Amino acid sequence: MSSKARLISTVFAAVAVTTIAAESADDLKVPTGYRTWFHVNTMVVDKASPLFDGLGGMHNVYANPAAVAALKKGGPYPNGSQFVTDLHDFSIVEGSYVEGARKGVATMVKDSKKFASTGGWGFQFWADGDAKKPQVTDATKQCFACHEPKKDKDYVYSTYIP
Amino acid sequence: MSSKARLISTVFAAVAVTTIAAESADDLKVPTGYRTWFHVNTMVVDKASPLFDGLGGMHNVYANPAAVAALKKGGPYPNGSQFVTDLHDFSIVEGSYVEGARKGVATMVKDSKKFASTGGWGFQFWADGDAKKPQVTDATKQCFACHEPKKDKDYVYSTYIP
Repeated sequence: MSSKARLISTVFAAVAVTTIAAESADDLKVPTGYRTWFHVNTMVVDKASPLFDGLGGMHNVYANPAAVAALKKGGPYPNGSQFVTDLHDFSIVEGSYVEGARKGVATMVKDSKKFASTGGWGFQFWADGDAKKPQVTDATKQCFACHEPKKDKDYVYSTYIP
Repeated sequence: MSSKARLISTVFAAVAVTTIAAESADDLKVPTGYRTWFHVNTMVVDKASPLFDGLGGMHNVYANPAAVAALKKGGPYPNGSQFVTDLHDFSIVEGSYVEGARKGVATMVKDSKKFASTGGWGFQFWADGDAKKPQVTDATKQCFACHEPKKDKDYVYSTYIP
């Protein structure tokens, strides 16, 4: 997988986090337990990135047990598969990027029936990981538009890095 | 925990990786299975860091199951506790730091009897994660000297970030 592709992998939640949505698209709940899931990879969106305003931070990506085997094969994913990006602040200390507190939680959940119109995946991003701050009101536009080109990987950009 | 302290947490393997040691100090083996352990945190040592020559890269820190409860309490750690820093290359793509391939594997393992002279911890760092490339020949000088000030945390710098 190219670096470019890996970069894109964390763009799924490329929404303006300043908008407070009253209701969560896709009717998803803030995931729990993901801190003990499989750590897929990490990316830091720094100030030089055009994504910094909405998505600046350290992106720790996790996959739930149902997703790991498919991740290693590059898909397809069984229903129940779930990815979480645990978005954290960072500080730069003597030239090193050091993880800070949580800024948000993004997820994509596989349910081929329920989310048939968006490739079988439901999407959401909560600012601060707060259930009262879902940011995605239109998953098709805000999330799936960017995932659609990855149809051959079941719409998942993240890849397994041994 | 301060950012400074978090930075220091990954300095445990501050050794010149150009030196090829014939034998591994502390008689440790390259750990396996750590990719499924608990992801403690991630740090990126960038080019501006004085540590870049020896330790540049993305440091993904994992703790084994025996260590997690103690990590959350800030120590002390039971024998069998183990930390791994999975050191990866990174590339900078449009202002984002993207994880690449493995550069090295560092570990600290708790055995209060065997490693009594270094706070109960054995240390090693393998370039490329290669069993034939251990870099630590004197754990007291190369590792424990920096860990000793953290005696109140059982010599561990890493902290739990929920």
